[in-house]
Amino acid sequence: MSSPARIARHAERARQHRQDLYQVLDAGHQIGTLSTVMDGQPWVVPMLYARVGDRILLHGSTGAGALRHVAAGAPAALCVTHLDGWVYAHTLFDSSANYRSAVVHSELAVLTGKDAASALTDLSDRMLPGRSTEVPDHTRKQLAATQALAMNIVDGRWTVKVRQGGPGEPATSEQVPPGLWTGVLPIRSVYGDPVPAPRVPDGLPPSPSIQRLMSTH
Amino acid sequence: MSSPARIARHAERARQHRQDLYQVLDAGHQIGTLSTVMDGQPWVVPMLYARVGDRILLHGSTGAGALRHVAAGAPAALCVTHLDGWVYAHTLFDSSANYRSAVVHSELAVLTGKDAASALTDLSDRMLPGRSTEVPDHTRKQLAATQALAMNIVDGRWTVKVRQGGPGEPATSEQVPPGLWTGVLPIRSVYGDPVPAPRVPDGLPPSPSIQRLMSTH
Repeated sequence: MSSPARIARHAERARQHRQDLYQVLDAGHQIGTLSTVMDGQPWVVPMLYARVGDRILLHGSTGAGALRHVAAGAPAALCVTHLDGWVYAHTLFDSSANYRSAVVHSELAVLTGKDAASALTDLSDRMLPGRSTEVPDHTRKQLAATQALAMNIVDGRWTVKVRQGGPGEPATSEQVPPGLWTGVLPIRSVYGDPVPAPRVPDGLPPSPSIQRLMSTH
Repeated sequence: MSSPARIARHAERARQHRQDLYQVLDAGHQIGTLSTVMDGQPWVVPMLYARVGDRILLHGSTGAGALRHVAAGAPAALCVTHLDGWVYAHTLFDSSANYRSAVVHSELAVLTGKDAASALTDLSDRMLPGRSTEVPDHTRKQLAATQALAMNIVDGRWTVKVRQGGPGEPATSEQVPPGLWTGVLPIRSVYGDPVPAPRVPDGLPPSPSIQRLMSTH
């Protein structure tokens, strides 16, 4: 079957418009893979992110060494992938995956002061929408312990690939096993039942922000 | 809130045993991010994979340039991440994500002949279990168009991080908004209803392999 790497060769799967990039970046759970080069070796780590305008926001601890390296202007690439389904074709070779993926190349810049604080709120609002209104604001100590970073989205330095739809039809010369089912098995992400912390009194419903998030998925 | 990058600093979240690595690699939908270095720049692409024994199998088109670069012995890293839930704490700073992630550093080796053919079947069997028994075997032409690759899993060149469980308890000095719910909102992946290809007669049920896969999730 085809891997996304293989699929990526198909020119018809590439997308050219920024809006297509934004759609892929804004879908899903805002988790991607950040990679850079350290001493000539690939370095890679999963990262939560949020796109706001033409920037991608990230954050990490001020104590994380590798992140400091990236923060210092090293070239970086963020890869985001949504697996949408398995495409069952009449051969393994023609079988495939439906997916949306984006790669953004850029350098990271460190945010400071109010920019950093609002970036951290933006990040939270994308992952846990509405939660920032339910809990106390960032303290100075918390802000000092967290590094907020931004990647500019620059024309010519990003790619988007989308594979969707069913399998290709068998060629007339091909023998297909009689009665073989072909098609797509969709994959999607769902929320489970919220699990309260021990400190939460019995019967207290999840916060309104959580109930809203669950109702939209 | 904390990103996985930040979480990764927590030593207690690291796992040391190969079995822990295998569990993370074998979970989920067998999709990861492969990164390498091209002309000093990070290069990254989503890839389907399968772990078989102490090797990770990958595949791509023989025509994919970047993959050829990696196949030629360039250093590579595969990153696999499962996002398991949002951890809602009493502050944004203490909020977090439950996740399992693995990074394996290695070089890729090109497989040939029977090794390549069996690797392609192994890959299919991990993603579309049982499908290889329902469709024709690989043809010579298909094998020639596909590159099968293997990464050896080498001690000291992989890391696993796991964050699970609820939020930390507030310190006694902290003010928590009265009646605030804290806990975990689980996230999981599910299959949707299979969508038949146009060639499939009305009423033909999905292949047994697909029905089995759906029943185990």
